[in-house]
Amino acid sequence: MTTVLKLGGSVITNKDSPETLDETALDSALDAVADAWQEGGDGDGRGDLAIVHGGGSFGHHHAAERGVTATEGTRNARDAVAIHDAMSRLNREVVGRLHDRGVDALPVGALSVASRDADGALDLPTRGVERMLAEGFCPVLHGDGAVQSGVGVTILSGDDVVVALARSLPADRVGLCSTVPGVLDGDGAVVDRIDRLSDVEGALGGSDATDVTGGMAGKVRTLLALPVPAHVFGPDELDAFLDGDSPGTLVAGGE
Amino acid sequence: MTTVLKLGGSVITNKDSPETLDETALDSALDAVADAWQEGGDGDGRGDLAIVHGGGSFGHHHAAERGVTATEGTRNARDAVAIHDAMSRLNREVVGRLHDRGVDALPVGALSVASRDADGALDLPTRGVERMLAEGFCPVLHGDGAVQSGVGVTILSGDDVVVALARSLPADRVGLCSTVPGVLDGDGAVVDRIDRLSDVEGALGGSDATDVTGGMAGKVRTLLALPVPAHVFGPDELDAFLDGDSPGTLVAGGE
Repeated sequence: MTTVLKLGGSVITNKDSPETLDETALDSALDAVADAWQEGGDGDGRGDLAIVHGGGSFGHHHAAERGVTATEGTRNARDAVAIHDAMSRLNREVVGRLHDRGVDALPVGALSVASRDADGALDLPTRGVERMLAEGFCPVLHGDGAVQSGVGVTILSGDDVVVALARSLPADRVGLCSTVPGVLDGDGAVVDRIDRLSDVEGALGGSDATDVTGGMAGKVRTLLALPVPAHVFGPDELDAFLDGDSPGTLVAGGE
Repeated sequence: MTTVLKLGGSVITNKDSPETLDETALDSALDAVADAWQEGGDGDGRGDLAIVHGGGSFGHHHAAERGVTATEGTRNARDAVAIHDAMSRLNREVVGRLHDRGVDALPVGALSVASRDADGALDLPTRGVERMLAEGFCPVLHGDGAVQSGVGVTILSGDDVVVALARSLPADRVGLCSTVPGVLDGDGAVVDRIDRLSDVEGALGGSDATDVTGGMAGKVRTLLALPVPAHVFGPDELDAFLDGDSPGTLVAGGE
């Protein structure tokens, strides 16, 4: 039972201040991860859990300063490395705090392994991550820079990493822990379950409104295409998700 | 014309003192690299050059302290990350100094991308490195930790990375810049050319003497199996190699 868990950048960092952790939220999330990891696995105290975290105030700040986005790349390596190193600093905080909690976490940087073709199709070889899981490690990936043919180094979001990883491993369950308690309907209530985009199109503003809704329509569309169920929930529900419950919104996808 | 250049850890670091650069030798080597990179390529001032560096006093110190070798692994993630982070610190010195010289260098960490099966066969997907080269970047890889099935995290040498990279890209030329001026015969003279191991077996002490000869017999055997010519030379000959000359010893391999 392999789980891919995304910890949103806005959950674990303070987005208003460059390179600042939300220490309380981060430690609380990693406590939940450590509990689940030590209870999981095949009785060896090492759960089958891969973690992906977003950039929050570490990645976005450096990317925005340099005008680098998911589609606008840079061929200036110093700029690309500045973005990557900021993400690596956040990654080392997450990995180090997992070690403090007894979780054998290993850092995996997407810049070293992921790339996109000229059409934006992502190549993310995962044999190394699979072997880390099989050896009892907890791989910790993150949003990062990634080279794209014809464009230079662009931003690869944590969500993109989650989707590629979930397909390739393959994962049995996917969880996205963000600052909202789930996908919200027009009245601000959490939608329990989404089987197709038309279920929530009205509330999310239709397919043209991706930006307005903070990317939730695009996120739901992507999750629906996954071959496994995905759960969207808030930080308070992380324990429940890791216990096997179905908090927040279930995006049923390939179920 | 893609070139893979290995900068030996003993060339660019002071092996006697933990985590100490040989600043003079490193800067001199990177000056040569920068000259070649800016003159190379398809007239765009960006040469097709991938660099791999060894661990020197950064990697070996931490690996030895923790008893981790190419065959003895660890399942303690903190130990694995300590070794990886030390290598990353050396990598950032190399990458940063290349930026200072106008070379668009990008770091590539093998821990994120490489792994070995239970028999030790290396999997090193290189599409990302290929795309970096095509986009005009200079990828800089290094010896690192890598997960191996059944063993945990072991040491992946810079030489192993060179060989996997040269095969997979594929490279047209391979250069190994170490502290010796080439493969030496029994009298300490540089052998010009090696077409088969029997050419130098006597001087290298035969196939059982890998350790005694500092790994040179094993290195020659590996280079002979490459589909491209490999050159083994000292730091003073780096300019000549990058100019297309054939300094030191040519291990003809698949020529």
